[in-house]
Amino acid sequence: MIDSNKHKSQTSEIGIIRNKAGINAPVVDYVAVEAPLQIEINDKSVSITMRTPGDDNALSLGFLFTEGLIVDYNAIAAVHQKDENTINIIPEDGFEISPKSMERNFYSTSSCGVCGKTSVDAITAKSKYMPVKKPIKLADKMLFTLHEKLLAVQSAFEMTGGLHACALFSREGRYVFHSEDVGRHNALDKLIGHSLMAGRLPLSEHILLLSGRASFELVQKAAMAGIPVIVAVGAPSSLAIDLAKENQQTLIGFLKKTGYNIYSGEALS
Amino acid sequence: MIDSNKHKSQTSEIGIIRNKAGINAPVVDYVAVEAPLQIEINDKSVSITMRTPGDDNALSLGFLFTEGLIVDYNAIAAVHQKDENTINIIPEDGFEISPKSMERNFYSTSSCGVCGKTSVDAITAKSKYMPVKKPIKLADKMLFTLHEKLLAVQSAFEMTGGLHACALFSREGRYVFHSEDVGRHNALDKLIGHSLMAGRLPLSEHILLLSGRASFELVQKAAMAGIPVIVAVGAPSSLAIDLAKENQQTLIGFLKKTGYNIYSGEALS
Repeated sequence: MIDSNKHKSQTSEIGIIRNKAGINAPVVDYVAVEAPLQIEINDKSVSITMRTPGDDNALSLGFLFTEGLIVDYNAIAAVHQKDENTINIIPEDGFEISPKSMERNFYSTSSCGVCGKTSVDAITAKSKYMPVKKPIKLADKMLFTLHEKLLAVQSAFEMTGGLHACALFSREGRYVFHSEDVGRHNALDKLIGHSLMAGRLPLSEHILLLSGRASFELVQKAAMAGIPVIVAVGAPSSLAIDLAKENQQTLIGFLKKTGYNIYSGEALS
Repeated sequence: MIDSNKHKSQTSEIGIIRNKAGINAPVVDYVAVEAPLQIEINDKSVSITMRTPGDDNALSLGFLFTEGLIVDYNAIAAVHQKDENTINIIPEDGFEISPKSMERNFYSTSSCGVCGKTSVDAITAKSKYMPVKKPIKLADKMLFTLHEKLLAVQSAFEMTGGLHACALFSREGRYVFHSEDVGRHNALDKLIGHSLMAGRLPLSEHILLLSGRASFELVQKAAMAGIPVIVAVGAPSSLAIDLAKENQQTLIGFLKKTGYNIYSGEALS
């Protein structure tokens, strides 16, 4: 089980602005790479997953096995890397990869935000609120208070330690609303669903706080609702940063009581 | 945007065994509830998501909006709760919910482990290694060392803070292998894929360590590979615990240097 290729492309070097106690400084940082992998059987796509590159053969075979599509490595004639984001698996003659279990459906799980799209391009849906309005200027001091304000209202997390949360704040840092779920994308869908029902879209004057990491699908969903500023307590992925830049959204990560990193957008006032 | 129903069913009370410095005690604890929600449009299923119950109307509408399937709340005639895990959305006459964007595909994202199944029952695939063998007896002292051993080899996480990891240990606590990914289920698929390629399945004498939370799909994937013991640094979900019990797997959460919680399985020696 040796894999010398393991750490290839798992991390990406980027320039960010690091804020420490109100002082901004440009620094070089590393982020986890997130990119789509298409898994094919006999040239037919069976799954597209957002993954960290570098171990794609094992990922593809492990996926087929844990999903019950193959029961044996002997069923596999070849694993062929078609390009950097496509793996084609060729079964041995006589081994059918159970086609019934591959019946297609629009399906998603607790942390799945882009299920059901038919191509990688289709992952980035567009809404009438995109592009988002120019990011609003924010004060350091206000940002430093957001996580504490969220923890004060996040009762279910306190009891279980098992829920993701996202919260909406006004540009002045006033708490508006929050949602919790075992799935990050569900928490954000709930928050945006409430805003839709209340006639409050687009959220173009608001700040979105994420209790964990910022992945591609969360930045995408925020953009759909016109949210200009995303602040995450955890790390962002490479694709989350790329998308935020494309959308001209401000993306902040590793929010602490006296600092944060700016991955997309300008230094704050 | 008031929602008095918000915390209904978000947490579940369960009996666990809490280990502190080697002393076991039965206590009552709370876990985050995880359960499947089927979202339908005109009685036709468009998505099944693992979610925390309690805010399903907002989740369903937010999902349709952030996926670009509706652009306006005026498009919705009614949101009908058919049962506790099914929401049926009825569009206004003349509002077609763009059927093209609902074209089906076997699709998954960075944290999506059960994509592509056509029914809730189908989520739990079975492998020839199930049921798993009777859990192995483990020593506290050995368990307390596992997380440190993983951190020692988890280089990409150290650089980015953005990767999930899972690691395989022998029953004596010897490090065997680990994988990292932005998606939890991908990290586990990689680990099991390597084991498959190396002819090492089933992993019925091994311990699986998860760097984060234990969700349903991770317990399911571990069971597919015959893994009898799952140890998570974070919290388990309700459905993860239910499945581990059904599979007779030992499930441990909140692993610390001097303690842990046992959610499924007997007290360790």
